[in-house]
Amino acid sequence: MRIEIDASLVERYIMELGKFGAYGDTGVWRVVYSPEWTGAMDQYGAWCEEAGLTVKRDTVGNLWGVLKGSQPGKSIVSGSHIDTQRPGGRYDGALGALAGLIALKALKQQFGTPKRTLEAVAFCEEESSRFPTTNFWGSSAIVGRIKPGVAESMKGYADETMADAMKSVGLDPARISESKRDDIDTFLELHVEQGPILEHGDYPVAVVNAITGIRHKKVTLKGVQNHAGAFPMDLRRDPMAGFAEIASGLIDTAHRMGRPAVTTVGRITVDPNFPSVVPGKVEFIVDARHPIESVRQEMYAKHDAFMKEVAARRGLDITIEQLLDHKACPSDPALVALLHRAAEKQGIRAFTMASGAGHDSQQMAAISKVAMVFVRSKDGRSHTQEEFSSIEDIVEGIRVLAGGMHELAY
Amino acid sequence: MRIEIDASLVERYIMELGKFGAYGDTGVWRVVYSPEWTGAMDQYGAWCEEAGLTVKRDTVGNLWGVLKGSQPGKSIVSGSHIDTQRPGGRYDGALGALAGLIALKALKQQFGTPKRTLEAVAFCEEESSRFPTTNFWGSSAIVGRIKPGVAESMKGYADETMADAMKSVGLDPARISESKRDDIDTFLELHVEQGPILEHGDYPVAVVNAITGIRHKKVTLKGVQNHAGAFPMDLRRDPMAGFAEIASGLIDTAHRMGRPAVTTVGRITVDPNFPSVVPGKVEFIVDARHPIESVRQEMYAKHDAFMKEVAARRGLDITIEQLLDHKACPSDPALVALLHRAAEKQGIRAFTMASGAGHDSQQMAAISKVAMVFVRSKDGRSHTQEEFSSIEDIVEGIRVLAGGMHELAY
Repeated sequence: MRIEIDASLVERYIMELGKFGAYGDTGVWRVVYSPEWTGAMDQYGAWCEEAGLTVKRDTVGNLWGVLKGSQPGKSIVSGSHIDTQRPGGRYDGALGALAGLIALKALKQQFGTPKRTLEAVAFCEEESSRFPTTNFWGSSAIVGRIKPGVAESMKGYADETMADAMKSVGLDPARISESKRDDIDTFLELHVEQGPILEHGDYPVAVVNAITGIRHKKVTLKGVQNHAGAFPMDLRRDPMAGFAEIASGLIDTAHRMGRPAVTTVGRITVDPNFPSVVPGKVEFIVDARHPIESVRQEMYAKHDAFMKEVAARRGLDITIEQLLDHKACPSDPALVALLHRAAEKQGIRAFTMASGAGHDSQQMAAISKVAMVFVRSKDGRSHTQEEFSSIEDIVEGIRVLAGGMHELAY
Repeated sequence: MRIEIDASLVERYIMELGKFGAYGDTGVWRVVYSPEWTGAMDQYGAWCEEAGLTVKRDTVGNLWGVLKGSQPGKSIVSGSHIDTQRPGGRYDGALGALAGLIALKALKQQFGTPKRTLEAVAFCEEESSRFPTTNFWGSSAIVGRIKPGVAESMKGYADETMADAMKSVGLDPARISESKRDDIDTFLELHVEQGPILEHGDYPVAVVNAITGIRHKKVTLKGVQNHAGAFPMDLRRDPMAGFAEIASGLIDTAHRMGRPAVTTVGRITVDPNFPSVVPGKVEFIVDARHPIESVRQEMYAKHDAFMKEVAARRGLDITIEQLLDHKACPSDPALVALLHRAAEKQGIRAFTMASGAGHDSQQMAAISKVAMVFVRSKDGRSHTQEEFSSIEDIVEGIRVLAGGMHELAY
């Protein structure tokens, strides 16, 4: 069994969708509920209709293309988000929404009506690029996690409320809860990798066995601010020296744990941040991720013990505040096996890996089985105009996705 | 021989001078050419006259109290600055200006007219607290280092020119060069230590054998900005990891070299400084000081070699830019011995140490022999309202200073 995917159609859809919010040569700036986003959603809906799918829009603006099955039962769904970073590229999100549509179009053309209902979906506001405090807005609505009143209080970067942004495109924020669904059996999401692992290992695609768990900790080290010339090294309580030792140690720990453990110190604030003053205070954020829950906790315990030991030894006061903690989201093991079978049957080399970034699938896991397909990214780049995946790799990815859907639905 | 210093007079002068620009309970905010500064200078002049000194003001506003010697020859001068940080305390600078005056007053009362001319001096704008780009304004004028036109182009924090500030107190910027002197043989400066070395070693005073040399380097580490979740540790080129290793290493190197070597990383800028992004660029400033020129160069060579090795090993681009470089300023060895003799004769325990901070003496060294006396600082604090030295320690310091002047001038 081989599912044919039309490479020229894939390329045309990517390029045409990228025109909505085109930014620079290859970028896209398309935030939720903007005119660019509306244009892209309408185009997506038109392509769904061309493919013979029934188009439905829910009360937060997610768009569904339905291929009704001949038998009753819950749906098999595939898709991703249409909104982008400011600017992002043509692939992050958009490729997954198109992949769901293209897979359904190909399955319908090549195998006719399925037994089970298949759906393609384009979600809204995955990137939090207009409303920074959203947590997968469109998919949160589908799983019923948006509390009443949130749309009225949530503010965007331009200080507008989510409720007003929804109204501007004809959506009624009072009806958000109607987007909730309980009839989805399986959600499969195709996405660009956003890292260099497939490129480095020379694989076109991967089956994702988990979305990583993540914790953000804000760490404050307080020492004693002093004159950089008059205070000898041996009498200092220098929080920058403590920071440097801690950042080195945390990064080393994650490195030695090996893939897929990661730890990043990306943000630091120094008080007073003057060249000739031993600082009094250093604050920084530790982003540490692992997709296996027990190993994640073990890494945090190592990190905390090390930070406390360094602070105590250097005479620094330390406070550790947890800003964010999301558990790892394992894929359904049967779906992982199914997608690997679909790859194998079609002669496609598929790697197995965890996702180090978050995805709508994390939300969808609340109401359905989930798994993901990753497509190789050039230089591991994403959230930039430079992101790129080859049409050859994308076609392989859609074949794996469509193969999995075929086994489930026909 | 014992020189008597009136402790109650010392205390009264410190407290009364501290009223000009008093800030909070114990602070002083007194920038050059301000009404507070003018008031303090007038008070200093009045005390000089009370002590029987002839008052002279030069063309930049330094104030001199002269005790004419019975024989011709160059002067023996002692003093320091009257301007403060914003806010500073009662001791940094002001104490040295008062010490010169009090020493002359005591010598005149107890020993009469000296053979050689003695002078007390109050300098202006040592702290660069109104005009940040000055480099010891008052003492620079005395040694003839202020170039024509500088006062017109130099700007203060409130965007005023130095020339306008001078005019506001009746000084003519066209006449700055007239402040130049070539008739000073010896300059002795008493100052609070600004560090904890005397307190830690339980000494009331020190003779300063050198003012440290200092270099500021701006270091830029460029790596590759990446997603904090999707990019594995082993493929990152993370400039924050490089920074942490470098800062730890530089600080360790200075620590292992022992006193008086110091190295501080007080300022860092991270691009983009987001919690979930491996940064693309980290910039930081290294402040490294040593009072022995050959050891200073050796330390810089170690620092540079280490930074380059770390950057190369981690795949980071590094650029090192020199922002500032001041050579060490050794005290005159005969003056150091003289001040130690003056301490010993009066039963005062005096430590020997380098100054890790800069002082007017560095400028005065261009035209005269120099040495300094340090007085113990509580908790090593300075440039703050909390700075404090005890009257007992201050009196010991002035005795050492006056003892030295006595041996030179009588």
